Parts: sequence; C-alpha cells; structure tokens
Amino acid sequence: MTATQEPTPATAQPPRSLLDFQGWSRGQLESILETAKMMQEVLARPVKKVPALTGFTVATVFFEASTRTRLSFELAARRMSADVLSFAASTSSVSKGETYKDTLLTLDAMGLDAYVIRVDAAGVCHQAEKWLGKPIINAGDGWRAHPTQALLDAFTLLEKLGTLEGKKVAIVGDIQHSRVARSNAELLPMLGAKVVACGPATLLPGSLLAAELTTDLRQALSEADAVMALRLQNERMDKGLLPSLPEYISGYQITEGRLGWAKPDAPLLHPGPMNRDVELEGSLADSPRSLVERQVANGQAVRMAVLYHLLVGKKS
Amino acid sequence: MTATQEPTPATAQPPRSLLDFQGWSRGQLESILETAKMMQEVLARPVKKVPALTGFTVATVFFEASTRTRLSFELAARRMSADVLSFAASTSSVSKGETYKDTLLTLDAMGLDAYVIRVDAAGVCHQAEKWLGKPIINAGDGWRAHPTQALLDAFTLLEKLGTLEGKKVAIVGDIQHSRVARSNAELLPMLGAKVVACGPATLLPGSLLAAELTTDLRQALSEADAVMALRLQNERMDKGLLPSLPEYISGYQITEGRLGWAKPDAPLLHPGPMNRDVELEGSLADSPRSLVERQVANGQAVRMAVLYHLLVGKKS
Amino acid sequence: MTATQEPTPATAQPPRSLLDFQGWSRGQLESILETAKMMQEVLARPVKKVPALTGFTVATVFFEASTRTRLSFELAARRMSADVLSFAASTSSVSKGETYKDTLLTLDAMGLDAYVIRVDAAGVCHQAEKWLGKPIINAGDGWRAHPTQALLDAFTLLEKLGTLEGKKVAIVGDIQHSRVARSNAELLPMLGAKVVACGPATLLPGSLLAAELTTDLRQALSEADAVMALRLQNERMDKGLLPSLPEYISGYQITEGRLGWAKPDAPLLHPGPMNRDVELEGSLADSPRSLVERQVANGQAVRMAVLYHLLVGKKS
Repeated sequence: MTATQEPTPATAQPPRSLLDFQGWSRGQLESILETAKMMQEVLARPVKKVPALTGFTVATVFFEASTRTRLSFELAARRMSADVLSFAASTSSVSKGETYKDTLLTLDAMGLDAYVIRVDAAGVCHQAEKWLGKPIINAGDGWRAHPTQALLDAFTLLEKLGTLEGKKVAIVGDIQHSRVARSNAELLPMLGAKVVACGPATLLPGSLLAAELTTDLRQALSEADAVMALRLQNERMDKGLLPSLPEYISGYQITEGRLGWAKPDAPLLHPGPMNRDVELEGSLADSPRSLVERQVANGQAVRMAVLYHLLVGKKS
Repeated sequence: MTATQEPTPATAQPPRSLLDFQGWSRGQLESILETAKMMQEVLARPVKKVPALTGFTVATVFFEASTRTRLSFELAARRMSADVLSFAASTSSVSKGETYKDTLLTLDAMGLDAYVIRVDAAGVCHQAEKWLGKPIINAGDGWRAHPTQALLDAFTLLEKLGTLEGKKVAIVGDIQHSRVARSNAELLPMLGAKVVACGPATLLPGSLLAAELTTDLRQALSEADAVMALRLQNERMDKGLLPSLPEYISGYQITEGRLGWAKPDAPLLHPGPMNRDVELEGSLADSPRSLVERQVANGQAVRMAVLYHLLVGKKS
Repeated sequence: MTATQEPTPATAQPPRSLLDFQGWSRGQLESILETAKMMQEVLARPVKKVPALTGFTVATVFFEASTRTRLSFELAARRMSADVLSFAASTSSVSKGETYKDTLLTLDAMGLDAYVIRVDAAGVCHQAEKWLGKPIINAGDGWRAHPTQALLDAFTLLEKLGTLEGKKVAIVGDIQHSRVARSNAELLPMLGAKVVACGPATLLPGSLLAAELTTDLRQALSEADAVMALRLQNERMDKGLLPSLPEYISGYQITEGRLGWAKPDAPLLHPGPMNRDVELEGSLADSPRSLVERQVANGQAVRMAVLYHLLVGKKS
C-alpha cells in the first residue's frame, strides 16, 4: 500500500477484480488464502474436480506469451468445471491492427464471465475492467504487478512458516523490472512481513513501496526467514544494464554457502522458469530448501480460489 | 438464389450441410433463426450450457487462420456440451504436402460428427462433404461464402427491425472480394430484403446475385433501413485495386454525416475486425447506431442453432 | 524382445508406463488389445464418451510437433472424460533454455496424472518416468519407439487377419530412421508374427531385433500376409542417404502390380501422412486393400485402452 492509500474497511465488499492489491483488505486476502487451503484438499483427491463454476466461461487473453502461466490458469478453471476460451494475440487480429479495446469487447460479446489477462503494457488490465465491467485477473502487466504469483508465494510461505507476522523475506535479482517483486512487496507487508529487495544498483528501483532496498546481498540474506530469487532476463544484459553474467553470478547468485547467512532452514523460492547456475546454484533447486515445485502446485489452489471468489464467492 | 435454381419445396429435408444457402428453403432457414432465439435465452442464463450435443465431437478445421471465428464456433460447440477437436493447418501435415482430402479423411477416421471448415480455396467445403458424408459448416471459403456470418447478420437485423420484408440493406466496401457480401446477398433477399451493394468500381463485381450494384454511396444509403460496412483488406491496396486509402475514405467511409442519408435510426453493422477510421468513422463504432458487438453475441446463438440443426435437429 | 531379455512372468504387474514393449508380457499386451475392442464399441455409439477418467488430467507434452498424433491422444483422453493439458514446446520456456527435467517437473507440480510425450531425443521418456514417477506414454522418441502406433497396427492386423500367429508382415521403406518399424519389429513377433523389413541398403540398419532384413522387395513381399509402407522423410534425401526419389520409387514404391507378389487380399498399411505416388501408388491408398483410415480409427480405441490400463486398470 502506498502512503496515500486509505485503509480499506474490514466490512467492505472486495474489489470486482484482482489487478493488484489496491482496495483489498488483509481480511479479504486471507479469505482467499483460506479458500485456497480447501482447494488444496480437492487437489489431493483422485478426482481433482469440483462443479463450482459449471456453465461459466473464463477467458485467458495473453497478449504476451507465457505458456506455463496460461496453462496453470486454464487447468484451474477447468478443475472448477468452467469452460475456457483461450486467446493468444500472436495468432489474432490484434496483429491486424485492432486495438486492445476492440479485441476485448469482441471477445466479451461472446458472453464471457471473467478474464485472465497478460499484457506487456501496464494499465491495460485496469482499462479492461472499465471497458468490460467484469472480473479481470491480472496475470502480469509489464513490470507492474502479477498478483496471483504473490498470493501463491504468500500461501507457500504461510504453509512453511506458519505465519508471516514479523518475518523477513529477502527478494534477490532484477528488482527494477520484476512484477513479481513489486506484487510481493505490496502483499507480504499487508500480511505482516518485512521485505528486503536486493540486486545490483542498475537493477534496483529508486523505491519499492514499503520494501527496504540494498545492493548488499549479505545484508539482505542476514537473518532472513525466506529467500526469493528472481528470474534474470537475458534482455537486460543486451541493454547494458548488467556488466556481465559472471559479475552478476559472483555478486548475487544464491549459493548453498550464501544461503547460510539466512536463518537455518530458511526456504528458497523462485517464480520460474529458473536459469540454473545463474540466479541460483543448480543443485539448490533440487535440495529440500527449494519450494519451487511447491509454488507451482500451490498456484493451482490459489488460482482456483481467486476464480471462485471473483465469480461466485463475492459475498463471503 | 440464381435464376437457374429450382425453388426448394417447403416440405423437403434441409441439406446435410451449410455450405451456402443453395438447397435451403426460407422456412428451413427461419427454423434455424427460431432455434437461435432459444439459444439466446440459454446465453442469458448464469449457466450458459445445455447438454444437447453431449458425446458429439465437432472439428474446427482452419486451413486459413481466423482466431475469432474459430473461437466463436468452438465456444458454441462446448456450450452445447460437444467435444471439440481444433485443427489448424499451419502446424499440421498439410504443410508437409498432404492433400486436403487425406487430411480430412485422416481426421474423420478419429470418429468426428461435424466439421467447421475455413479454407481460402472455394470448393473445398463442397468436396469435403462428398469425401466425408457428414455435416460441414462453411466458415468462409475464399471470396465465395460465409453463411453463418450472413445468418447472424440476418438475426441481428430481425432483432432490430422486426422483419426483413421490404427492407433495404446497403452493403458498402470491397464487394468483389467479400464472402460476407456474397452470403448476405444470397440470404437477405430470401428473407424479403432488398440488397444494394456499393463500392469503388475496382472493387465491384459484374453482378452479385439479386443485389443492385452502385458506385454512388449516397444512392446506396438513401432510405436504407440498415447499413453494413465491410472490412477493407490492406492486401487490395498492394495489388493496385485501390487508388489510395485517403481516396477510399473520402468516397466510401461511413461517417456520422453520411449515415444521415439512411433512414433515421438505421443501424450500422460490420463483420469485424474493424479498421476504425477506415471503413467507418471511429466514433460510430461506439455509438448506439452500431450493432457490431450485438453481431458477435448473436453469432454464439446462431452457431449453436446451426450445430444443433445439422447434428440432431434434422427432422425439425 | 532382444536375446538378452528375460521373459516376463505372466502373473507380473504390467509396467507403469508404455515406453516400448520391454517388461510387457504377451498377456498384458493382449489385455490392452481386448480393452481396445470394448472401446471400439463405445466409439460406434452416437454418444462416444465414457466417464472412466473423470477428474484425471492427462498432459500431452510435444517437444516435437505432430498435430495428428497429439489430437488423437487428446481426443482419446477427453472421450474418457479426462481433462487435457496440452503443452507444445515451441511456445514454451524450453526455448528459453529450461531443461526437459525442469519443464516436466514444473508441469507435474500442477497435479497431472499421466503424460503423453513426443521428443526427438531417445531416452527422454525413460528419464521422465524416473523424474515424475507417473505413467508415461511414449508418443515417439527419435528413431527408437512409437509403441501406440505398433499397438494400433497390431489391432488393425488382428481385426483383418484374425490372428498374427505364423503371419508374415513386410515393412517397406526407410527402416533405419523409423520408430514405427522398430516398434512393430518389437511387438508383432511377441504376438506370433514374422517381420521382414525391406528398403535400400542405405536405409537399412545392421539388424532390427528379430526381423529379417532384405533389400529385395520381391523377396520381402513374397507370400506376405500384410504389407506396411513407411513414410519417406524428404530430409533423408537432403543428407544424401537416398540416390534420388525416382530411384527410390522404381525400387521400392508399393504398386498394384508389386502387391500381387503378396498373398491375395494381403492388406496395405501406412502410418500416415502418406506421400501419394512416393511410398505407394496413389490409387492404392483409396483401394479396398488400404487399411490406412482404419488404422487411424483404431488409434482412438487403442489409445483409450492404453490410458485406461495405465491410469485405472493396472490390476487387470
């Protein structure tokens, strides 16, 4: 939450959409995380399917490709018995010059109930909500936000740590260009945690909400209850924002040794896909410290819960 | 209907396929439009799904890409509880030199019940019906026909005007290369309307079934009960069929002013995707005169009705 | 079976996966073929759908494109009421440098029940089974194996010939690079048949399990109970393994005349897609001798049976 934001009354209706965490109260978000726990039980059954969203149609609209995120949402929707309309912009009329607005209004006219949108331009998801008047889930808009990723990270941390109250979470890597860092820096403090964001000076923003910023990896990891490594995009290197890969690795790769600076058993998270031996020592990914697969698994439960809350559980 | 075509007896069985409107009687087509009205009621419910086609498999076979048309058919099929097999030629063995016939016979051997085919070569849909002996829905074959588009246009016009009997419908744009124009010029007169087709001389065919042809936009729009603008393909410009975009716009763009030549409240249709400020003044698309989104919405109801009639409702 | 392989006891549990036929007993494979017969009856009904796999999620993971094989598996899975997650590597993070292992573990974390994998590198399917500990169906791994193709070929031959005991099956074409030849050479002898593999010397391996190898087409076809032509890949020509297409055709094309060397009514099979007038005389493909479409149809029944056995019928 920014300094200028009014606190949301506990009794207020939750927002119609999950664009970021503006307008959401801690209680409303905890309610989604509670539902995710129930969904996790569904996913542990042989028959991983509930009829909750029968007859609803959820659209995934990806103006930017991301197969894994798209599949995660689509599987979550189908496990709630929703129909899925899968729209990828590369094969579509957007490339023929149609605007975002016309594309979305045309799809909407087919009678859709909710939208999962990924787009490289921040702001499109917010506008989409105004154009369509229906629940929008932001599945990543430029560098700005990726709220279901932060929710699944929080869910995974809660599962491991029991609470986020008073916990220190270190986020390491390309903070400046990371919607994952930004959404976690928004959500985790709402749940009681302290976030320290760490990376080379060229990849740190001037400020990041309530997060503490540092270029000193040891300081960031010191006494951390959990460590989250971010994916390094090769594009950054091309743009001269990074001196070189070896320099990044020597200063910021999470290694088994450096993880020793954090609390004993502090878990390691990564939003995936990992560049093994870049953001983290390859062997760490397969160690018991890594929660990377747990994050993906919890992504199913959290996305089912978000769809449920936005589509049928608004009152709860 | 061409002059040489025999009238279809009212009591005849409808054709097995919807390739164009040859062989269909007015009564049979009105019966589909009646069913579409019932489907529209289904689509207004929270649970937009009926079990009518459970266990049927509908294939969409797109030898030419058209995401929106494909999605519209697939969603319509799934809302009838059919399974959908989605085949796009670009990723297929057709590019390895397999013939249309072998491709379709191979798919058919998997046990499919109906085909929605888009192909740039006119005639393939007709041949497909002979090869497969199963219901084929032509989703656009070259310049020739796109019958579900004409049916949804007719449905939308009927919804707005009450009847097509004695109504004047102006179709404006690249008439020569438009399967939408051709199918509407075939269907709308069967339902009692008069069609006037209008565009620059280089984009007008020598004749278009029973339609009146003109290069004079004012004459076309004058006293029109409805106006339909067609999409302008940039490819035409490249081939020198159009002098220039500014000249097209100055002569044939539908503007708010020119729409005044038509009857008061005459609605504006467009098959989409629109080139705003080319075929029509951008602001018109968002005005109450525009039925563009209504056309897309009605496309769901009409396509559900067509699938239903061809697969299970043949006797009705 | 290779000479060094121990016979599998009839009472043993079948393997968890279908990677090839190692570890499978004749009885276990005949049990799958029996189930396929029941599935064939389901496919003959108007409602071609059974609830056997409701709540299961089957992933198709194609690191190499093959639309028809992928669609065949996906339709088979959905006809058993399974959910399908369709992952194509070309649009995925594998192209971003992620390893096969990370890709599969990430997908698996979403809670999947079985995998259909196509990959050009032999060995990945075997490793996938170790990484995931779940049923894997090999849908083609390099030149090595394509076991469901061999099963559907066997099913088709049994349907036509009644038994494979003592039958001679000639396989003609590019034996060296054919996973279809290799899997048939493994399976058909287990069911009692004798396999003769025939092609130009440059396209014959040094040995092929228990199959007899020959460059003499007449010898191969002589007294054959069935003939299987393989698809010729143009890539082979480019690599200089074939003198020229005309030479291949003159020596090894299956023509109506040459088919006369085989037993009367000996059927002709081809795994598809066919190069008409290359591997076989074009007219033969449409003659009553050809079982090509029957193979595709039986592919549905066989793949449904394999999915059923691996997912719920392990004990049977």
